Amino acid sequence: MEDVFRHIEEHQQEAIDDLIRLCSMPSVSAEGRAIEETAELVSEMLRGLGFRTQILPKAGGHPVVYGELAGASREKTILFYNHYDVQPAEPLELWSSPPFEPVVRDDKFYARGACDNKGNIAARLAAIRAFQAVGGQVPLSLKFCIEGDEEIGSPAIEPFVEEHRQLLAADACLWEGGGVNWEGQPQIVLGAKGLLYVELEARGANRDVHSSYATVVPNPAWCLLWALATLKDSQENILIDGFYQRVRPASAQERAAVEAMPSQEENTARSLGLDGFLKGVRGLNYRLRHVFEPTCNIDGLSSGYQGPGSKTVLPSRATAKLEFRLVPDQDPEEVLEQLRRHLRQKGYGDLEMRCLLGERPARTPIDHPFVGLVCETARQVYGRQPVLIPSMAGTGPLYPFVNVLGLPTADFGVGYPESRFHAPDENIRLADFLRGAKQIAAVLERFAGEES
Amino acid sequence: MEDVFRHIEEHQQEAIDDLIRLCSMPSVSAEGRAIEETAELVSEMLRGLGFRTQILPKAGGHPVVYGELAGASREKTILFYNHYDVQPAEPLELWSSPPFEPVVRDDKFYARGACDNKGNIAARLAAIRAFQAVGGQVPLSLKFCIEGDEEIGSPAIEPFVEEHRQLLAADACLWEGGGVNWEGQPQIVLGAKGLLYVELEARGANRDVHSSYATVVPNPAWCLLWALATLKDSQENILIDGFYQRVRPASAQERAAVEAMPSQEENTARSLGLDGFLKGVRGLNYRLRHVFEPTCNIDGLSSGYQGPGSKTVLPSRATAKLEFRLVPDQDPEEVLEQLRRHLRQKGYGDLEMRCLLGERPARTPIDHPFVGLVCETARQVYGRQPVLIPSMAGTGPLYPFVNVLGLPTADFGVGYPESRFHAPDENIRLADFLRGAKQIAAVLERFAGEES
Repeated sequence: MEDVFRHIEEHQQEAIDDLIRLCSMPSVSAEGRAIEETAELVSEMLRGLGFRTQILPKAGGHPVVYGELAGASREKTILFYNHYDVQPAEPLELWSSPPFEPVVRDDKFYARGACDNKGNIAARLAAIRAFQAVGGQVPLSLKFCIEGDEEIGSPAIEPFVEEHRQLLAADACLWEGGGVNWEGQPQIVLGAKGLLYVELEARGANRDVHSSYATVVPNPAWCLLWALATLKDSQENILIDGFYQRVRPASAQERAAVEAMPSQEENTARSLGLDGFLKGVRGLNYRLRHVFEPTCNIDGLSSGYQGPGSKTVLPSRATAKLEFRLVPDQDPEEVLEQLRRHLRQKGYGDLEMRCLLGERPARTPIDHPFVGLVCETARQVYGRQPVLIPSMAGTGPLYPFVNVLGLPTADFGVGYPESRFHAPDENIRLADFLRGAKQIAAVLERFAGEES
Repeated sequence: MEDVFRHIEEHQQEAIDDLIRLCSMPSVSAEGRAIEETAELVSEMLRGLGFRTQILPKAGGHPVVYGELAGASREKTILFYNHYDVQPAEPLELWSSPPFEPVVRDDKFYARGACDNKGNIAARLAAIRAFQAVGGQVPLSLKFCIEGDEEIGSPAIEPFVEEHRQLLAADACLWEGGGVNWEGQPQIVLGAKGLLYVELEARGANRDVHSSYATVVPNPAWCLLWALATLKDSQENILIDGFYQRVRPASAQERAAVEAMPSQEENTARSLGLDGFLKGVRGLNYRLRHVFEPTCNIDGLSSGYQGPGSKTVLPSRATAKLEFRLVPDQDPEEVLEQLRRHLRQKGYGDLEMRCLLGERPARTPIDHPFVGLVCETARQVYGRQPVLIPSMAGTGPLYPFVNVLGLPTADFGVGYPESRFHAPDENIRLADFLRGAKQIAAVLERFAGEES
């Protein structure tokens, strides 16, 4: 292993060169920019390491780069999930250097995509190159599945995975990437929440009306807010029948993992200018809520006059963006149906409802042997106890990999809390980049060596 | 009287010329355009008829044109309330001819202000000129109080009237103007609702946050809508303690007047594309609600993401524009205090509340002799039974005239349902213009001749 690690260190410039090539592509999925070219580049870079590649169409989405490489052991396969697309770079004026002209400054690598997610692709390639240089080949078989539209919600990833079940078959999956926390501890994330995002619209008269008609003309803003107020009470209880029914309680091990997580809420409160959190949660209760609880959130409200001062108007329409974060084993389609039934029963069946996003939650069992193995590699590379996080509070396309392909997953990578992903001056520290590549190498080595 | 009427008919072109002069001034109060010049013009036109005039400053508002003229009888005085300002002309592209270049087409006079309210000023001047031409002088003393900011809520009209109590003293007041209904019946309006308009704001984190934090970070959109939902239930009951306490029940005569009003709701429903009205009201119940009920209306809602599609965000603030139309004897200051107390008691005392507008309701007693006199003049001029409306559903600066000066008021004028006031192609029919001037003359004559 030490020779592989040494190769990674001594050839870091090659990994940086890879990352420069990747980050020079403005592959902004929201704008459909440079998508084909970047898929082609990624495919070419994989072929350069001996991968057989295909660029696979994904219905309703951008093409997926698939690659496979046989290893010393053909009995085991690791599947890497990554994405080659990035968030828009705006606001451009807040970048210290142009987002698609990568640059190293103060031992940090700056570019859109440096952390999310191209830095992790480059780290994985560096680990593979090191094995090949040192021993001729990688210790086990590898597959890559690199999406081109993760940043716009990975449309149709579930049917894609179903369709390519055989092609994507593996024994474990390394997820796109993560990073260390403020204290420098490596973090390993095992799950993602699901999502249901709907737009609700109430309609009244065919145009805005003088507000003196509020005596007799229905006001859709009232209707919408009465409807919304039936969904959740001020104690944060979600009142939709059956909503909590499928929520799987945290296991003792998952709870223990959250107990062991460092406290975060003081930093969060300070940063957001808050005196306290919902229901006054602190410490462990804060973390338990954040990791395990589903949510019902209003992302937007819009109706009538919103400018300065007063305008006396009775609006003709009112809309809300309403979002649920879901936890295993909740299902966005079922929650959508529950929501529809709830609104009908409460007398708001005439609200128009448009479903905008749906993703299922997924969580790799914390007691899976692969999780233990990944934790050991973190200790080996970082010399520190990793922080094991049963689920992120956010959402990602994890479900088909865990539940369709049946793979254990783990998510760790080259970022740190100041990586500014999705923001100007996105960057990674070169030291994290090195350690990230080494941890990938360590996982491949250990997983290949394990008893099947 | 017939000679006065004939003079009005034969000299209509002079009245039209007056109206052209008035409507050529773009006196848009919201933009502060041409205010001084228009006040000066109005003052000059009054002086041309022998009025002694003053241009009086109004604290926090535009200047008021005041004029007085002694009549044959000095025992009685009529006060005219008008305003020389107009609504903005936008959207300009929807006008058939430029809004401040008056034009007569098809026996209609088109210009911004034609109906609201310059046509009524010109009609009043025409009636005065006819008396002077025919008999040398007007039959009773006259005063004008012509505001320059009615279209932006008549700021500080109440202290202005208090300050000028003596100057404005009179025996009756003719309000700014009204018009005939769809059936051509003359309408006489006796009151106006009051208004309380506030902006409510809920605040959360110091910036919008990724919506995965909805587990722990308070969402001001929820807080705002829960607070609003405590104000009114879905049966349209306003739930603020004491809100209805001062609502004066309609008298038998007021109710009889509303019973005699023609049905309007079918036209309204068709025009607004509605299947029905609040609480299913129809016919008399529709009219009773519209005339006598106070309202609690949401004029606007704003929070978080309002663009197309989805953005997963937890908003940092949420605002609502909230409006109450008030009926005698409700008081906007008292309702504001009730609202504040209500929100505090319900646990929403930390909502920020900004009061944007407050006006008191006012209503001239329907059994006042002056009302009967005005009705007779309507029958005389239009040959039809007038429609007596105890209060408009909207708001106007009536309170200080009724309750500070203690005057009976009546509101009738030169408009018709297609006058499009506040809209492009504002216009009056020349025939209505003539009849409006005649009814003014008839009121002056009769009121002068009545026993004191």
